[in-house]
Amino acid sequence: PDAAALAGASARNAQLTKPPASLGRLEELAIWYAGWRSEARPAMRAPLVCLFAGNHGVAARGVSAFPPEVTAQMVGNFEAGGAAINQLAGAFGARLSVTPLSLESPTADFTQGPAMSEAEVVEAFATGWAAVDPAADLLVTGEMGIGNTTAAAALSAALFGGGGEAWVGRGTGVDDAGLARKREVVDAGLAAHAGALDDPLEVLRRLGGRELAAMAGAILAARHHRIPVILDGFICCASAAVLAKAAPGALEHCVAGHSGAEAAHARLLEALGLTALLDLELRLGEGSGAALAIGVLKGALACHSGMATFAEAGVSAG
Amino acid sequence: PDAAALAGASARNAQLTKPPASLGRLEELAIWYAGWRSEARPAMRAPLVCLFAGNHGVAARGVSAFPPEVTAQMVGNFEAGGAAINQLAGAFGARLSVTPLSLESPTADFTQGPAMSEAEVVEAFATGWAAVDPAADLLVTGEMGIGNTTAAAALSAALFGGGGEAWVGRGTGVDDAGLARKREVVDAGLAAHAGALDDPLEVLRRLGGRELAAMAGAILAARHHRIPVILDGFICCASAAVLAKAAPGALEHCVAGHSGAEAAHARLLEALGLTALLDLELRLGEGSGAALAIGVLKGALACHSGMATFAEAGVSAG
Repeated sequence: PDAAALAGASARNAQLTKPPASLGRLEELAIWYAGWRSEARPAMRAPLVCLFAGNHGVAARGVSAFPPEVTAQMVGNFEAGGAAINQLAGAFGARLSVTPLSLESPTADFTQGPAMSEAEVVEAFATGWAAVDPAADLLVTGEMGIGNTTAAAALSAALFGGGGEAWVGRGTGVDDAGLARKREVVDAGLAAHAGALDDPLEVLRRLGGRELAAMAGAILAARHHRIPVILDGFICCASAAVLAKAAPGALEHCVAGHSGAEAAHARLLEALGLTALLDLELRLGEGSGAALAIGVLKGALACHSGMATFAEAGVSAG
Repeated sequence: PDAAALAGASARNAQLTKPPASLGRLEELAIWYAGWRSEARPAMRAPLVCLFAGNHGVAARGVSAFPPEVTAQMVGNFEAGGAAINQLAGAFGARLSVTPLSLESPTADFTQGPAMSEAEVVEAFATGWAAVDPAADLLVTGEMGIGNTTAAAALSAALFGGGGEAWVGRGTGVDDAGLARKREVVDAGLAAHAGALDDPLEVLRRLGGRELAAMAGAILAARHHRIPVILDGFICCASAAVLAKAAPGALEHCVAGHSGAEAAHARLLEALGLTALLDLELRLGEGSGAALAIGVLKGALACHSGMATFAEAGVSAG
């Protein structure tokens, strides 16, 4: 972040017509945004939601309450404007881009071998990078992919330790038997790749998926373009965790939009040292929780950049 | 609420293109709003923030970090558009009405006698009621009044038990000595009116203030007009608590917008059986936390009323 903009934003914040720190986390949020945008009194004009969809070999193992064809059907729904993320992006003035990633070729079942080849993971990562418009001034990454909480759980377990028991939840709503299968699949994946999980990017290739790689690419592109990021749910954060493990500080341009109903999400946020802005028991993905948090950021920036100072308003500063 | 609209909204919610309950609290919020607006697929077009300002006799006892003249100065700031609530109302498309209540005549010091006469409390209550435009489709009540966390603490203690120790915090930022004074003032107020605190409206008259009475009037007017309400911070909730104590169920048309940094706010929400939508460590008042929560409601309604159903989108329902 830009030290001068951070200092300017902090100085401005101290002069606004409110008791010190009375806007709580809105204050730190505005200052954080100012630092990344190199502007002490910033406005947000072009928020962007990049949504990536992928299919997963492990879906064939009965780890989801929904059949794999739902991924493509939901892409159609995103393109037609009918999904939750369309409404939330619209409500907060964000542009939505939708990128399906080779849906007709699911990743390989990671209990049998790496989910992706090197070429595949690089292509997905690069597609994610390219999806980020450098003119955007906020990024939300979202995902859709039947089976992808299983991939996110395997990825989290490989990065932070613990097995299926620690990182697997019901996702979009599997029953008890499905939950047991998910845990077994994650443990089988960890066992199959044991000894090859030291490099976070290799973990992404072996246990992740195309939409997870794309989100990691998009989040890194945002860093390159100095675009602040609001992270979404468990799957988005698992992608981000790959970057955090690969390079300390890699997520300094990110805030956690929400803490979802999937228990592993809270665990992952803690491992990443992030405190979510919202906790509304969402467990949808699509970038929905992060899109909702755009509203919080919008409010924070409106206050920071729009309020009068004590001097301007002729109010006694106490 | 309207049973047919509630049933229609619940039925619609179950058909939307998302896993059941995956939008968490957004779903209950949209259904709650639908019930009060008698519309299964509602839109919010006219949110209103009613801001009331009052002055307090107890301010002379050194219970605030700010001098009492700040109340009038901040009213000027609200009218000029320079305060936090102006920016937040603007960010979420809400109209802001500002009502100063006899600022030149502070309430009486409640350690010496009732804060207000019967005529005064009734006038303030009626002013609050009249401030609510029946054409609004959402109400946020906010307040400004140097010394009013002390009044809210006294009110809460009288309604729910416990003394200054339990209900007094630092408000907008008093130091340790100020905190001790606030607690003494609250305890002195409770002692001075002991035996006359059974009737919640009498508690409001004796220990409250004009802006607290006005908020209670506005919240009740909203119930009359079937306008859903988002409650703000500690002081707003103390006003609402008067209604809840006077008539069980009186706050069914209300949700708690946020849980503030003032510890007594969380305690009060618990006593009222409310779970806040946001927890961002705000402690400003003005309706700021509730205004921020308008964004959450906006997102909830956008999803509920804008999403496609499984049938419309041709998505397999799992």
